Amino acid sequence: MINKLVEKIKKQNAPVVVGLDPMMKFVPKHLQEKAFAEYGETLEGAAEAIWQFNKGIIDNIYDIVPAVKPQVAMYEQFGIPGMVAYKKTIDYCHEKDMVVIGDVKRGDIGSTSEAYAVGHLGKVQVGSNKFAAFDEDFATVNPYLGSDGITPFINVCKEEKKGIFILVKTSNPSSGEFQDRLIDGKALYEHVGEKVNEWALSCMGDDYSYVGAVVGATYPEQGKLLRKVMPKSFILVPGYGAQGGKGADLVHFFNEDGLGAIVNSSRGIIAAYNNEAYAKFGAENFGDASRQAALDMIADINGALGK
Amino acid sequence: MINKLVEKIKKQNAPVVVGLDPMMKFVPKHLQEKAFAEYGETLEGAAEAIWQFNKGIIDNIYDIVPAVKPQVAMYEQFGIPGMVAYKKTIDYCHEKDMVVIGDVKRGDIGSTSEAYAVGHLGKVQVGSNKFAAFDEDFATVNPYLGSDGITPFINVCKEEKKGIFILVKTSNPSSGEFQDRLIDGKALYEHVGEKVNEWALSCMGDDYSYVGAVVGATYPEQGKLLRKVMPKSFILVPGYGAQGGKGADLVHFFNEDGLGAIVNSSRGIIAAYNNEAYAKFGAENFGDASRQAALDMIADINGALGK
Repeated sequence: MINKLVEKIKKQNAPVVVGLDPMMKFVPKHLQEKAFAEYGETLEGAAEAIWQFNKGIIDNIYDIVPAVKPQVAMYEQFGIPGMVAYKKTIDYCHEKDMVVIGDVKRGDIGSTSEAYAVGHLGKVQVGSNKFAAFDEDFATVNPYLGSDGITPFINVCKEEKKGIFILVKTSNPSSGEFQDRLIDGKALYEHVGEKVNEWALSCMGDDYSYVGAVVGATYPEQGKLLRKVMPKSFILVPGYGAQGGKGADLVHFFNEDGLGAIVNSSRGIIAAYNNEAYAKFGAENFGDASRQAALDMIADINGALGK
Repeated sequence: MINKLVEKIKKQNAPVVVGLDPMMKFVPKHLQEKAFAEYGETLEGAAEAIWQFNKGIIDNIYDIVPAVKPQVAMYEQFGIPGMVAYKKTIDYCHEKDMVVIGDVKRGDIGSTSEAYAVGHLGKVQVGSNKFAAFDEDFATVNPYLGSDGITPFINVCKEEKKGIFILVKTSNPSSGEFQDRLIDGKALYEHVGEKVNEWALSCMGDDYSYVGAVVGATYPEQGKLLRKVMPKSFILVPGYGAQGGKGADLVHFFNEDGLGAIVNSSRGIIAAYNNEAYAKFGAENFGDASRQAALDMIADINGALGK
């Protein structure tokens, strides 16, 4: 799957992933009203609204953006109907040949991480049958529990040729509280980065590993360092746009081959119609606004990369 | 909810929680066959089997054990039907007046942690209505992202009078890879413990805080230290039984009031019928075996505590 991601990024010339984090406040009123008219102001109604919102965006970006990153929390908060919308979104993106990065940030002790890995990236055994429960292509994983929590994911990745992105340096303001603390003169995130590199080298695709890392766009200096620590890992870079990251900050997250990073924007793309720059499209045409915002983001990043 | 947990522990004289981690290999054959006969060897069939398994255990322990801890990964691996079984389990435990600790180990940047907190402990807004999506009483939370990831949970806890257990020192063999690394002469887990104590003091119940911690039974020395670092936090202690922890190792996880810790056993209780010591019950009577194993665990821990 890392090979497919690299190919799509090259073909579309777009090292970009759109975060499908459909908070209700981003869903245009007309979609909310239609969903509530059919299902009431219920969890089912909310799930229908966010699914229709996603569909409108996917239909307008699938030919220019290689990947999406649905944030499962935004679906999970609507309970079972929300999880149904999450699964529908994954399946629909696959129909459109997009790569799906499940932003699930799971991670637990061995046997439990195995269940997460199987449920999100692999196939679960039921009697003599096997089922892919959620079937994302990549998942994000939390490293706090160490190798026991990561190895089961790597095993499933090898079997299914799928991938993970391990949290190394997250984009949020307080990420430094623990991640920046110095251990033997190096920040915790660098130690985690070194382990990511070990894990990465144990399961390589053609040029890049099945094991990638998450490093926030909001920390460009750390990105520059971590790029060197994990040369074979793709870096998933959240924090562009709404969280403050800019194209010019991102150059050092990439390798000299112009690859090695994929930059995420969520609300900057999906709620573009709310942004003054794209207001001319109007809420009815939120998908067109998202497409234009995605094109502008791609141009910004490619410009910074001198492409 | 921490007050209710403390009351129930006192009343039942049982500082014990049963981990409802229904891996298919633990589910007795007769339950699997019945579920598969009705739903086929499908995700629905698996979900029915684990739900009936849980029900059989809950019916046999609810009057002697104060709390359960369903591990969501074991449900999530069966996709949507699995999540339906998770929710049914939570609701059924509430009918039986048990405290439910959702072992979800969630944690993300601010707005995302808020969605997790709302979905698991709070109520989500849909139009003019509010819904509790999963409605656990407590959730486990991962600290790697720092305060941004924790504060949204604390806000919901204050509003709903619910609680969290933050991962501090986990029970698995590789937990030391990052958690034991020294920062200014103290292990990372101790730094996390100090933050847990700060967060804990900011939202107190009567005697204990809404904010607790996870510290593995497999690390008794660390438990002794962390007990002092976080005097007002309940410690959720996994790793008893199958993972190797014993009653005598657990004494120092408790405060002098005989409270402050709740010890989890999962397969040791739910798969007791597979254990030689309880084989006489037979697979048909797996619930009776679980009850006896729970009684023995309570006696072991109370014995060690001199109660």
